[in-house]
Amino acid sequence: MGEIRRHPERGSDELNVIRGILAEGLVAHVGIIDAQGSPVVIPMAYALDDDGILIHGSVASRLMRSGGPICITVTLLDGLVVARSLFNSSMNYRSVVVTGVPEVLDGEERERALLVLSDFLLPGRVGNAREPSRPEIRQTTVWRLSLDGASAKIRTGPPKEDPASDYELPYWGGVVPVRTVFGPPESDGAGVEMPVPDHIQRR
Amino acid sequence: MGEIRRHPERGSDELNVIRGILAEGLVAHVGIIDAQGSPVVIPMAYALDDDGILIHGSVASRLMRSGGPICITVTLLDGLVVARSLFNSSMNYRSVVVTGVPEVLDGEERERALLVLSDFLLPGRVGNAREPSRPEIRQTTVWRLSLDGASAKIRTGPPKEDPASDYELPYWGGVVPVRTVFGPPESDGAGVEMPVPDHIQRR
Repeated sequence: MGEIRRHPERGSDELNVIRGILAEGLVAHVGIIDAQGSPVVIPMAYALDDDGILIHGSVASRLMRSGGPICITVTLLDGLVVARSLFNSSMNYRSVVVTGVPEVLDGEERERALLVLSDFLLPGRVGNAREPSRPEIRQTTVWRLSLDGASAKIRTGPPKEDPASDYELPYWGGVVPVRTVFGPPESDGAGVEMPVPDHIQRR
Repeated sequence: MGEIRRHPERGSDELNVIRGILAEGLVAHVGIIDAQGSPVVIPMAYALDDDGILIHGSVASRLMRSGGPICITVTLLDGLVVARSLFNSSMNYRSVVVTGVPEVLDGEERERALLVLSDFLLPGRVGNAREPSRPEIRQTTVWRLSLDGASAKIRTGPPKEDPASDYELPYWGGVVPVRTVFGPPESDGAGVEMPVPDHIQRR
């Protein structure tokens, strides 16, 4: 996948592209090196936080106890690119790869970050749910990784083929768009009966 | 994310779960360790191939020239889990993590694997597009990673909360379903004019 790479010597346009992709994603894939020296990639919730990206997990988790550099990747799949040749078939996507050593947040920074994480996927959650208690906060490790080590990679548009040869082939060429959509909210039917709140309905 | 881990001492049921998740995914996130010893996670097309998973890339790519263990992770996001407390909010998902040292395929194995890769996302592609030429095959590295090192992790259902305390809160609890959908195929308008073929239309 991927034909266009944007490099670290970028300007603010590049950072805007990176932030735009991160703002649209739902899941990050986080890579660490485990105790045996092997890479491990785990799906995690994340949040864009100004010029950084936040992830969190249990203080007991193997992942969050590792030190050293990590990699956080967020990918938006936009389409299947169908060329007349199998070789030139591809995918349209936008992805951000962020590498570096994360900062472990503590104290008020950790509390603030947990609210940012909660509000990211469903803006309005903070104020419409119980905030974390002291023991809940103590059970949670929060990492912040700067976007300094971020790069974006984007592929858009139709298949790229050799007009002189492949365009003559009796095959179809184009794109099958791919999108992520939200279904109607499903109440769990427990607790106090109430309508689906606006901030949930908006999704 | 994730409450249920299924472990390697699994039976054929577990392998069926793993294969089912991989059959439904579109993109893998592949973790390697780069020359500096840092983890890097890259989105890639993949294919389920019996008891293995295939990925491919340019022979020139940095990723495909690294040796040693890799990790291939495929995640299907099924929903946002909205609890009455921020702490118990989560995501419904199904993911597979496969770790190990991949086998580099060559000769007829590589040619067969490239067709399996092409046919995976759009079954019927082989036979409806030009197959790779010798030079195209030589430009492509193909890796196969056994599912021996695969585990699945699944979260389903409503939020898990303490009925004694959190059910009394005046907040909504439930799930916002998430799905990946395909849009109508878009012809690139180049080459020989022809209708969208059946195997594309089916998506």
